[in-house]
Amino acid sequence: MPPLTPPKSGDALFSSVERVNAELFTLTYGAIVRQLLTDLEEVEEVNKQLDQMGYNIGTRLVDEFLAKSNVSRCVDFKETADTIAKLGFKMFLGVTATVTNWDAEGTTCSFVLEDNPLVDFVELPDTCQGLQYCNVLSGVIRGALEMVSMKTEVTWVRDMLRGDDAYEMRVKLTKQVPEEYPYKDDD
Amino acid sequence: MPPLTPPKSGDALFSSVERVNAELFTLTYGAIVRQLLTDLEEVEEVNKQLDQMGYNIGTRLVDEFLAKSNVSRCVDFKETADTIAKLGFKMFLGVTATVTNWDAEGTTCSFVLEDNPLVDFVELPDTCQGLQYCNVLSGVIRGALEMVSMKTEVTWVRDMLRGDDAYEMRVKLTKQVPEEYPYKDDD
Repeated sequence: MPPLTPPKSGDALFSSVERVNAELFTLTYGAIVRQLLTDLEEVEEVNKQLDQMGYNIGTRLVDEFLAKSNVSRCVDFKETADTIAKLGFKMFLGVTATVTNWDAEGTTCSFVLEDNPLVDFVELPDTCQGLQYCNVLSGVIRGALEMVSMKTEVTWVRDMLRGDDAYEMRVKLTKQVPEEYPYKDDD
Repeated sequence: MPPLTPPKSGDALFSSVERVNAELFTLTYGAIVRQLLTDLEEVEEVNKQLDQMGYNIGTRLVDEFLAKSNVSRCVDFKETADTIAKLGFKMFLGVTATVTNWDAEGTTCSFVLEDNPLVDFVELPDTCQGLQYCNVLSGVIRGALEMVSMKTEVTWVRDMLRGDDAYEMRVKLTKQVPEEYPYKDDD
């Protein structure tokens, strides 16, 4: 059995990874959104595309997260959500999220972000009011969780770009696939 | 006259800015390139679009650079190139470039990058051999220099994605607009 290494703190984790300037990232992300708005015209289509991009990115980032964080198996969805909020957000964006608004079943919660590097300098023009600018983030969460066998639906319920007082995404666990060995004994 | 503050070192500059995880940035940039390849089909068009995105980003980043680096006026193109290589690359990407291959007139040089966070995990499929994957970087340089009155042409001459041993962009100063007060005395 390998020695048990305690999970790193969010700060230690964030310092241990290669980083680039947040403004460069923000402007690069802004360039994608602008490009999609030009190419696709329909805001709904842009929302879908950003979510899909996020999903693809999330399925990749989860590997770096597991490799660097020393986090092993989480006992339940609650622990998973806390780990994402405290370590995952910190490791990738340099900020932490708050987990709140749990439902009675413990299968739906919210991540609340007060600081969101994705949206620095962003203002939505009137023509883009339906735009879910941060859909890449909810897509990342969905993609990363799917890689650890949790199917989720993730939706934005508060958005500072629309005048709310914080960013809040609602994460609903819809299906948890039990982890299995890749091959059964009788294969 | 304001007190003269010496320019920061590249390391100090990089530590002083907000940062995000480099892998997140790399994957996000990869998502743009993939999206453009799907939307535009022609590799040449994708190259142009990436360059234009970089240009737009560069015209914005130069403000953060000047605000945070304490760099004031560079005496000539040579000093400007050194400043970009040692401080600009470091501040935004966390790596430094080497300035080399000056022509006799001192108006054309190369930036050589051995480490390039933009291309981690990237492999070009055979169908994308004409793709200038890093065109956003050359666009950023062009855009940033234009904001300080230097018109340039920037082209890639070596590219590790195409099997070269480093990344090398050639920067040619084509026009230097003398800086002027916004209004002349007799306006």
